[in-house]
Amino acid sequence: MLEHAKGLYVVAQTPFAADGAIDLASVDTLCDFYLQHGASGLTVLGVAGEAGKLSQEESIAVAGRYIQRAQGKPVIVGVSNPGIAQVRDLTARVMDLGAAGVMITPPNGLRTEEELFGYFAAVFQQIGDVPTVLQDFPFSSGTWMSVPSILTLVERHPQIRLLKEEDLPSITKITRLREGQGRRIAILTGNNGMFLPLEMGRGVDGPMSGFSHPEMLSGVYDLYIQSKVEQANDLFDRYLPLLSYENQSQWGVAVRKEILRQRGAISCAAMRTPGPRLTPTDHAEIEFLLNRLRRSLSELR
Amino acid sequence: MLEHAKGLYVVAQTPFAADGAIDLASVDTLCDFYLQHGASGLTVLGVAGEAGKLSQEESIAVAGRYIQRAQGKPVIVGVSNPGIAQVRDLTARVMDLGAAGVMITPPNGLRTEEELFGYFAAVFQQIGDVPTVLQDFPFSSGTWMSVPSILTLVERHPQIRLLKEEDLPSITKITRLREGQGRRIAILTGNNGMFLPLEMGRGVDGPMSGFSHPEMLSGVYDLYIQSKVEQANDLFDRYLPLLSYENQSQWGVAVRKEILRQRGAISCAAMRTPGPRLTPTDHAEIEFLLNRLRRSLSELR
Amino acid sequence: MLEHAKGLYVVAQTPFAADGAIDLASVDTLCDFYLQHGASGLTVLGVAGEAGKLSQEESIAVAGRYIQRAQGKPVIVGVSNPGIAQVRDLTARVMDLGAAGVMITPPNGLRTEEELFGYFAAVFQQIGDVPTVLQDFPFSSGTWMSVPSILTLVERHPQIRLLKEEDLPSITKITRLREGQGRRIAILTGNNGMFLPLEMGRGVDGPMSGFSHPEMLSGVYDLYIQSKVEQANDLFDRYLPLLSYENQSQWGVAVRKEILRQRGAISCAAMRTPGPRLTPTDHAEIEFLLNRLRRSLSELR
Amino acid sequence: MLEHAKGLYVVAQTPFAADGAIDLASVDTLCDFYLQHGASGLTVLGVAGEAGKLSQEESIAVAGRYIQRAQGKPVIVGVSNPGIAQVRDLTARVMDLGAAGVMITPPNGLRTEEELFGYFAAVFQQIGDVPTVLQDFPFSSGTWMSVPSILTLVERHPQIRLLKEEDLPSITKITRLREGQGRRIAILTGNNGMFLPLEMGRGVDGPMSGFSHPEMLSGVYDLYIQSKVEQANDLFDRYLPLLSYENQSQWGVAVRKEILRQRGAISCAAMRTPGPRLTPTDHAEIEFLLNRLRRSLSELR
Repeated sequence: MLEHAKGLYVVAQTPFAADGAIDLASVDTLCDFYLQHGASGLTVLGVAGEAGKLSQEESIAVAGRYIQRAQGKPVIVGVSNPGIAQVRDLTARVMDLGAAGVMITPPNGLRTEEELFGYFAAVFQQIGDVPTVLQDFPFSSGTWMSVPSILTLVERHPQIRLLKEEDLPSITKITRLREGQGRRIAILTGNNGMFLPLEMGRGVDGPMSGFSHPEMLSGVYDLYIQSKVEQANDLFDRYLPLLSYENQSQWGVAVRKEILRQRGAISCAAMRTPGPRLTPTDHAEIEFLLNRLRRSLSELR
Repeated sequence: MLEHAKGLYVVAQTPFAADGAIDLASVDTLCDFYLQHGASGLTVLGVAGEAGKLSQEESIAVAGRYIQRAQGKPVIVGVSNPGIAQVRDLTARVMDLGAAGVMITPPNGLRTEEELFGYFAAVFQQIGDVPTVLQDFPFSSGTWMSVPSILTLVERHPQIRLLKEEDLPSITKITRLREGQGRRIAILTGNNGMFLPLEMGRGVDGPMSGFSHPEMLSGVYDLYIQSKVEQANDLFDRYLPLLSYENQSQWGVAVRKEILRQRGAISCAAMRTPGPRLTPTDHAEIEFLLNRLRRSLSELR
Repeated sequence: MLEHAKGLYVVAQTPFAADGAIDLASVDTLCDFYLQHGASGLTVLGVAGEAGKLSQEESIAVAGRYIQRAQGKPVIVGVSNPGIAQVRDLTARVMDLGAAGVMITPPNGLRTEEELFGYFAAVFQQIGDVPTVLQDFPFSSGTWMSVPSILTLVERHPQIRLLKEEDLPSITKITRLREGQGRRIAILTGNNGMFLPLEMGRGVDGPMSGFSHPEMLSGVYDLYIQSKVEQANDLFDRYLPLLSYENQSQWGVAVRKEILRQRGAISCAAMRTPGPRLTPTDHAEIEFLLNRLRRSLSELR
Repeated sequence: MLEHAKGLYVVAQTPFAADGAIDLASVDTLCDFYLQHGASGLTVLGVAGEAGKLSQEESIAVAGRYIQRAQGKPVIVGVSNPGIAQVRDLTARVMDLGAAGVMITPPNGLRTEEELFGYFAAVFQQIGDVPTVLQDFPFSSGTWMSVPSILTLVERHPQIRLLKEEDLPSITKITRLREGQGRRIAILTGNNGMFLPLEMGRGVDGPMSGFSHPEMLSGVYDLYIQSKVEQANDLFDRYLPLLSYENQSQWGVAVRKEILRQRGAISCAAMRTPGPRLTPTDHAEIEFLLNRLRRSLSELR
């Protein structure tokens, strides 16, 4: 089913209380918020979801809560871990809970394509026949996969149903991936959606990214598939200053959570330690950008 | 003088002919183009200027030609090189030719702050009293410098007159640099200008970056220092889709050169091998974005 | 107590069956083997112990079995993990089981000393007052710590009782650490013991490393502290060809496990996938080197 | 001719005076020393030769002097540089001076095998038909090349006549390279010779490395090709403690230069800044190890 994924898959935040505890009640409100703003599916426990700061039991609790709340929409769970045994265990647990699949990025430290292929052979030998999203995010993983390497992985492992593409430039890589492909898989794009309308023109099936205003991501997708290309870009461009502002790695996630809090989607904007904290200057900048966005959207209508 | 730098310092391209030879005639037309579009100074032989692909004699020829043509405006020359003897030689040559100063980024492979400090001690011991731009561009150099480390370097080495800041997030780092500073130096920002109006609000003295439309960079600067903050952002936002499109590392440089060619600033858009080549799809996308920009600017007026 | 550690702390292997399952019976025989060959303590779940390939429950099972079998000798447990919550959970579990302390190396991706200090502040805030071995192994962790940085960490965190030093050159770093130290901690050295007698002369308290012949490591230590420096070196030099042979990262571990199997310490030499497999050529080389070692030792006596 | 290289190719030091100037007179004495101690050829301007600290003119001066003095023996010149134009210029200059070939390692920052192949295609397109040593030294270059990748490069580029192998474990990689090869090239091994006798057994044609006692490297080679395998190892093992001591990256080079000075091969042991300086403790250790070596050799005879 994941190979037919289309539309917005929101990369979901993990809500914490001010003391750093998981805030499961906010998982519910945030999940509702995502679905109300056009999500076709969710991806939980990604890098932007602070997955690396959770214990294994916390990971399972968060994933389970999202799955429970998602009204039957597919929930993909990030299970990347340097240790294959941990990938296997977490995969088994979340598939039992009803996940639609898992997302895996190669670990830091794979040095050649031989090692890359060896890693995924070992992973799939361990996890078995589980629908898998291959994440191509080299700036985070430290492992670069060329187009031929990705196509080789797709060919060798039928478990790979979807590619999350977030290398840069994504657009030229997407074109090469689509031109070179054998078996067709879904491609959704990350990079916080920074190139979404152009990526749609290059043949992707939608965004898989987070944003404080997911209605823009789903809106651009909807306009684009109705062939309203200029309107899709018009909508996108209004949000681009804020989107770019949130596209500043972990600090950008802090901004996103603060805006989600202001919009009532979560109770508390805190990131777990070690993570950035916003200053009064940052807050003033956020307000400035939100005011400009409001004005700009009112002109659009 | 560099410590009083203000306004737009354009990161200049190096023009090549189709066969890969340096095109010095296009250096002249491009230099004129930059100055006509609001440049207060130039920075030549940076990463975006394909400095790494030039021989030493070519580097000197390009730098000399820019200096000659710049109508007395300051020209800063990138001299970064893993070898300190090469830094010293190139520095001596370009200072003789009339450069306003040199720009240096730490080489890949410095592993601790001790090694960072040792490297710059050795560099300044070799090059002597030359006005220097310290470039903080970790995504290219592979060496991260914390705010305390940068301030220590500035304190130890009076040759450092200007910081080119292009870590991310730049905005929070600029605030910390300004709050922590002893001796005041100029700070200009890179990252292709992606956060220019906000960076101005954080206390920088202008952009040091390249763009196919440098009039935007100088325009935003001019509006900002007249306290026309909203108008500065309005202007910036119109160009942001194209700016973001060019902000895709070496591929973005290929786009920039193509647009500079279309605007008559250079004769040929070629990048030297190994470098990206634009496809028909890429060209169509560029035209699409330029058309949208034209429409958007006409609405602004 | 760890700050008074002395002698050989063996970096213990994790024994697997041919099918990749943990072989707990071999943990017992291997633990006995280490103690019979001069171990003062054990370090389990290190890089050479294939810790990264174990699930959390497997890690706890292996650590617990070693602790149970160690006849009251201190057992240090490696708990390094990119996620602090996982460090905290595993630490709590193994301390409950009777571990003497935990060993932590900074994760890959710390880019400045500010981030290094921030990481350990967060770790110690989470794990509380647990005796800790700081592991300085940059070739594995990707994070280089300068001598001043290590001394700062020791000063800030009284939990750090012991340093496992395995940067290169270790000898000059040890001298600088001992000269600069405030509070005295124990220093044991890794790098598979490749520089043990010289490191003893520089002021360390013994080796913390693995070897198929731990009697050499303990023997060199014993001779050295009796001021039999030449004899310590004589003993060391006889084993050096084999030691160097085992000092070839994960492939060297495969060799070590094979020799431990031949010596009856474990039932099966297998490493868990993905890991190297020895070829007939490798086996012949091992036999050649063991024969030479036997002859060389018989001459020594 | 390089494809038939056999025996010891010494990786030559670059001698400096105390003030950091090139000491060309010591190039002569050092070159004589190498030839008297069994060198079949020389490799100059490698990493251990401090190539990265020389200006281009200094590089040419050093290479030229070695070529002039080498009594017709082949001199290979390291020309690795991140910039291909600089590789081309230096190659042309040293080939004019009579070099037997050039040595090239891929630059830091090649991220996929596509980029690796693209880099060498561009290099060979620029330098033309020049006999080339491909250096596989990932710990220095940061670029890992798998066995299939190396074989592909050899197949595509007839200019590659010799491989300098210094990945680890070298022995298993050599076996795979020899088993998989099409066109036969010479393989000489680096890693300071740490695994020389075993590498000979795996099919290499000799060492390409530096050592304060090159007579060991040539001696082991000579014994080995006479099938005196045990004697080759006996000789090797005597020197192994010192060899291992010098095998500590740039600090080991400082040791090597000091011993070469003591042996009368160069006038001054200085390394160029930034480089390590030996302390009195280091000097005492060197003396200790040299005394032990002398005794050990006297027993051998």
